[in-house]
Amino acid sequence: MRSEFDLIQNLKFRFALDRVGDDCAVLPKNETHDMVVTADMLVENVDFRLNWTTPESLGNKALAVSLSDIAAMGAGAVWAMLSIAVPELLWNSEFVDRFYHGWHQLAREFGVELVGGDVSASPNGVVIDSIVGGEVVKGTAIMRSGAKPGDSIFVSGSLGGAAGGLALLETGRKDAAKMSDLILRQLRPRPQLAMANLLKQLGSLSSMIDISDGLSSDLGHLCTASGAGAAIHAEMIPVDVGLGGVFDPDRCLDLALNGGEDFELLFTSSEKNIFLPEPHQISRIGEITSNDGIIELMVNGHASVLEPKGYRHF
Amino acid sequence: MRSEFDLIQNLKFRFALDRVGDDCAVLPKNETHDMVVTADMLVENVDFRLNWTTPESLGNKALAVSLSDIAAMGAGAVWAMLSIAVPELLWNSEFVDRFYHGWHQLAREFGVELVGGDVSASPNGVVIDSIVGGEVVKGTAIMRSGAKPGDSIFVSGSLGGAAGGLALLETGRKDAAKMSDLILRQLRPRPQLAMANLLKQLGSLSSMIDISDGLSSDLGHLCTASGAGAAIHAEMIPVDVGLGGVFDPDRCLDLALNGGEDFELLFTSSEKNIFLPEPHQISRIGEITSNDGIIELMVNGHASVLEPKGYRHF
Repeated sequence: MRSEFDLIQNLKFRFALDRVGDDCAVLPKNETHDMVVTADMLVENVDFRLNWTTPESLGNKALAVSLSDIAAMGAGAVWAMLSIAVPELLWNSEFVDRFYHGWHQLAREFGVELVGGDVSASPNGVVIDSIVGGEVVKGTAIMRSGAKPGDSIFVSGSLGGAAGGLALLETGRKDAAKMSDLILRQLRPRPQLAMANLLKQLGSLSSMIDISDGLSSDLGHLCTASGAGAAIHAEMIPVDVGLGGVFDPDRCLDLALNGGEDFELLFTSSEKNIFLPEPHQISRIGEITSNDGIIELMVNGHASVLEPKGYRHF
Repeated sequence: MRSEFDLIQNLKFRFALDRVGDDCAVLPKNETHDMVVTADMLVENVDFRLNWTTPESLGNKALAVSLSDIAAMGAGAVWAMLSIAVPELLWNSEFVDRFYHGWHQLAREFGVELVGGDVSASPNGVVIDSIVGGEVVKGTAIMRSGAKPGDSIFVSGSLGGAAGGLALLETGRKDAAKMSDLILRQLRPRPQLAMANLLKQLGSLSSMIDISDGLSSDLGHLCTASGAGAAIHAEMIPVDVGLGGVFDPDRCLDLALNGGEDFELLFTSSEKNIFLPEPHQISRIGEITSNDGIIELMVNGHASVLEPKGYRHF
């Protein structure tokens, strides 16, 4: 079956869509700035379950996933629209008010203004489309396509926690405190706008993407866009410490490599080291190669091809 | 039950959302132009039925409804995003390709570039969110809120055809050629961008909205935003000629007053008459009053209050 990524590549080619395919589209705004814009659809029982989250957390996450796309361009968020389809039973509850409350909690923190959207009835389940617009100094948006062989590959924060939280929700395990940290990573992701801003001030990033589908898939997207390959080192991957003791070591690495929704930043630079002030954490996990489209995973000095196993809809 | 319009008013007040509530949000772009942006959600079995339309017509309509919002601001369309959730069975058919083909037919005609969006799986039914951005000379966007008592009220084209087409689809009647014209009005609406552009060149419009929910409701929205009322004359309403002979005269007037989705323009001006070159058709249907929130319908010299009976989700 063709994946959604295949469809998007096909549409890009068929209709000559030059601006499609990065975390945000970049459009000219004025003499000093470009505009960036992104849309993310969240579908009930595909992207979330109402009995695993609260309306506030869902509203919060709907905005967070789009803010993460803005961060991945090295841009700032300015305005947003929110379209939501809601079954009548939920409409007659507090759901919608609580959802917008949670959305606005995050919007206030990041100075985003709700300017529009749509409200519709839904016969089956909640569907949300989150649209965010932002801006970036002209010509400085960081695309997926700029990685060069020899560049170092870095990730912010830690990986696998959100997927670990999802696994706990799926199995109904939530007995220990460290489990609730993982579940919070799944339900209340933090967009890395401040981190992206700091990184951009260093001025040496060649490419960036946010980790939404999973490291193996998102590094694949970055390599494909850059016409390059990558070699990463298992022992350098910042596996979420909360996973240890809850999952076995192989599963922890698998969650960090292939689990989605950590919304950390994956980026490349010609620099070998990047230093950020505490509490910002950055890990160098490997390097870009000229091995077009191939991602190698090094484990104890042994290399194998890492297939993209992150989230896909189709 | 509270309507979606009640919710939007409540959100505007609760979160001080100054830009919410018109056909598009207006945002500063550069020294000479403002940006306009709009989002419209289309939900299967609420806004469309797959056995009544084709994938191409659905794609076409998804863009048309948003272009109509751009037209209602007196703006031009520039870019678009499209988010779509699709059940797996449809994903494995030609549906998605044909949908994007129909979308692009209209996009090419109006010079709109697809720059992004999202693709998701859906457990139940197709959901589309259509986002369009455009621009307008700074300070010249035509809002709903500018109507003044004494202004004339005009509509473009004819009304009731799209709702007549929907009624035929609902009852399975499509035996005569004139019926297929009505059905086409429902399935392939035309956004009135050229008409809006011509009207704007006249320079005397005080307010504008597109007729998406129905004349009674959309005139209500315009009056509420303007803090005014309206008196309209039944015999001046341009009832779609295709309705005659298919529906009885009372039903024809009801469809023109309360049927949605004609996507004609409803606007006000201090001018008593506005003349546009053929084939553009404009009808003066009444005048704005100081009777805040009240719409009077005059039938044979007798006035009654016209309640908003256009489409609402809740």
